[in-house]
Amino acid sequence: MSAAGRGLFVVFEGGDGSGKSTQTALLCDWLAATGRSYLKTFEPGDSTAGQLIRRIVLDPSTGELAAKAEALLYAADKAHHLDAVVRPALARGEVVVCDRYVDSMLAYQGGGRDLDPGELETLARWATDDLRPDLTVLLDGDPAELVAAMVKKDRIEAAGVDFHRAARARFLALAASDPDHYLVLPAREDRESIAAAVRDRVAALLQ
Amino acid sequence: MSAAGRGLFVVFEGGDGSGKSTQTALLCDWLAATGRSYLKTFEPGDSTAGQLIRRIVLDPSTGELAAKAEALLYAADKAHHLDAVVRPALARGEVVVCDRYVDSMLAYQGGGRDLDPGELETLARWATDDLRPDLTVLLDGDPAELVAAMVKKDRIEAAGVDFHRAARARFLALAASDPDHYLVLPAREDRESIAAAVRDRVAALLQ
Repeated sequence: MSAAGRGLFVVFEGGDGSGKSTQTALLCDWLAATGRSYLKTFEPGDSTAGQLIRRIVLDPSTGELAAKAEALLYAADKAHHLDAVVRPALARGEVVVCDRYVDSMLAYQGGGRDLDPGELETLARWATDDLRPDLTVLLDGDPAELVAAMVKKDRIEAAGVDFHRAARARFLALAASDPDHYLVLPAREDRESIAAAVRDRVAALLQ
Repeated sequence: MSAAGRGLFVVFEGGDGSGKSTQTALLCDWLAATGRSYLKTFEPGDSTAGQLIRRIVLDPSTGELAAKAEALLYAADKAHHLDAVVRPALARGEVVVCDRYVDSMLAYQGGGRDLDPGELETLARWATDDLRPDLTVLLDGDPAELVAAMVKKDRIEAAGVDFHRAARARFLALAASDPDHYLVLPAREDRESIAAAVRDRVAALLQ
């Protein structure tokens, strides 16, 4: 099915507070119930090296990071995660369900951080060997509402609503550029409706 | 003087055991004796974030790193080092004396590590905003002799003489491509002769 192997690569994207973790878990519950092998993972940081990388980026004690340094660290995390986690699972024929992927990097590092969006995309595609998900589910919603609901803050989340608005626009533009591989759903809809829509689409891809 | 500011950017390159650290120190001693402001630094790792990055790359407990992940981590270190250490010193008018820079990344990550040399160079130049040293001193020597003299081993140093031979060839090719900005000296020559040759060249650049 996937160009990358016998498995299927499904990604959830969207702003903080959009329900990605919940929907990732609900999709995996359904895959488990249907007896399908799957791997639940996330970016950045879901590897030993990735945890260390994420710590460098997010820990305030690191000091101010240059925009390019930050982007390169996220790109390194993606390259390692792909090699150590995602590709092996796809090769085993599993459904890989990943909370955030390249779109998040483009949306957050590309928005108002003194980086050329085209250069950033070239970097992210190079780091991931341009492996694209079979399906990206974008949980779209108004950042002001989503941010208001957040509890934990880190460096990026503290950047404010304008920053998140720019990220939302970038997520939507990426979805619009390749509609066949995206499913855009309203984040404020009830979680069971969203989960059902995701299941329908994934079930079709698994046929 | 330097395109990057009022300072001067001098880099020492060469294989492990070629005497870079010694010559870096001797040049800085001379700069201090002449009353010139300087900054002695090194790559990778000479920053808080850089130390953490270097630990990820070199610590065997990290596990196997994909070639692209390793290159991206080194590139992140360079981007941060340039922004946090090198550029501010050049802007203050100092002579920045750096033990290893972009050439080391190209020589070591580009040799036999499944990376396209052209892509690697694009990455390294992007990470450093293509800031080139005013002078690179290449301490050139036979890797078998240099490696035989080494005490401390890490992942890269353990890669063997063939690997170091490829790196030597790459160092020499980089020097040959831009002779005006390189000073190639035999690493086995006595340290005072080397130091004198470096001083002469730097003194001329400081005029």
